[in-house]
Amino acid sequence: MHKLVLIRHGESTWNLENRFTGWTDVDLTPTGIEQAKNAGRLLKAEGYEFDLAYTSVLKRATRTLWHCLDEMDRTWLPVEHSWRLNERHYGALQGLNKADMAKQYGDAQVLVWRRSYDTPPPALEPTDPRCERGDIRYAGLAPEQVPLTECLKDTVARVLPYWNEAIAPTIRSGKRVLIAAHGNSIRALVKYLDNISDQDIVGLNIPNGIPLVYELDANLKPLRHYYLGDAEAAAKAAAAVASQGRA
Amino acid sequence: MHKLVLIRHGESTWNLENRFTGWTDVDLTPTGIEQAKNAGRLLKAEGYEFDLAYTSVLKRATRTLWHCLDEMDRTWLPVEHSWRLNERHYGALQGLNKADMAKQYGDAQVLVWRRSYDTPPPALEPTDPRCERGDIRYAGLAPEQVPLTECLKDTVARVLPYWNEAIAPTIRSGKRVLIAAHGNSIRALVKYLDNISDQDIVGLNIPNGIPLVYELDANLKPLRHYYLGDAEAAAKAAAAVASQGRA
Repeated sequence: MHKLVLIRHGESTWNLENRFTGWTDVDLTPTGIEQAKNAGRLLKAEGYEFDLAYTSVLKRATRTLWHCLDEMDRTWLPVEHSWRLNERHYGALQGLNKADMAKQYGDAQVLVWRRSYDTPPPALEPTDPRCERGDIRYAGLAPEQVPLTECLKDTVARVLPYWNEAIAPTIRSGKRVLIAAHGNSIRALVKYLDNISDQDIVGLNIPNGIPLVYELDANLKPLRHYYLGDAEAAAKAAAAVASQGRA
Repeated sequence: MHKLVLIRHGESTWNLENRFTGWTDVDLTPTGIEQAKNAGRLLKAEGYEFDLAYTSVLKRATRTLWHCLDEMDRTWLPVEHSWRLNERHYGALQGLNKADMAKQYGDAQVLVWRRSYDTPPPALEPTDPRCERGDIRYAGLAPEQVPLTECLKDTVARVLPYWNEAIAPTIRSGKRVLIAAHGNSIRALVKYLDNISDQDIVGLNIPNGIPLVYELDANLKPLRHYYLGDAEAAAKAAAAVASQGRA
């Protein structure tokens, strides 16, 4: 049996401002830092040990991981960064306020943009200053690998190769893995692991900064999963995520 | 031509308390954090870019690196940790005050312990609670690889395999490397790179938190080296390191 721990970054400045973030590299708020530290303290208190951690190339996830590792006194743990664990790209919505968009386009349209499995938000123009194609951290990628927008299906398509080629073999080799990532890169993983339908994934929300434990069998099929700590608080936090896109 | 940047961690709590630290995993002071951030700001201002960073498994070096990367907006950079970049092991002196030891044993004896190339300080007993052999971060090593004491010659002997097998091939491949390490693991590297004699290395001190740039030719022979920023401040800081072991 393997244990895999997933953790969505703590509250970011744009979570707080209720803005679509996507690949924009915003930082944690003081609350987000506290959530990340709490996650580390929880993992330590419950006796979790890891051999390797994975995270995105976005600082809200990296810093969440660093705070966790710090609280666990494991700052020396190997960490692998991959753009494939980045948040879903939010296209031309990046930077815009979720509630403003709901007022302008209606709750239903915003829910489609936020949660539709296969309808992406409007794409960024490659010439838009928000486009990440000139960012040095993606310099090793072909331009078309850097998305201009993504639906969750697109996110699943770029997360899974990293799961299959990097993370899953590591877990199978017996290493204990922690993944610090984002709402939608974690939803992509969870959809795959639990074989959740395209319809049902719409209703699944991941709260910030609460360790989500998956117990996996030898074939990496989930046996069970649960949030560490206060289950009620985790459910409340997930419900709050769900309501962010309402006017 | 390759550029390699070495940086000794910022001031640690035991630097401030003037205690022998070695492999004891003490943290940075607020001054040390500021030094680390300054180093990052300097590197950024001078336009340095890196493809890979190396550090020890001790948190004062890791955290110095994290602060540097943070200031450079490069928190996504790959980082490799190795115990081979740890500080020199200070044996039974770990935790003791340098000036107290100088009062008790004389300045000359403390200088031998601090700077003799081939005389190690008294060894820790393996049963001493300060001994690191039970530390989970060294669990992958044979017990005899976890030192009970080290002279600089011993440190050179365990740093060089990592230089030769990991760091040097990376630099030769064209990758730009940053190393965040410790006074004596950096002295070990510098001794090797500049072919400094066993006698002359005694007088070489590395200040905390100031980037030290080595320009290397295609065979990794140094062409020149220099501290970034205020040269006079670097010289003063190095002189302060030299005087720590006096009564």
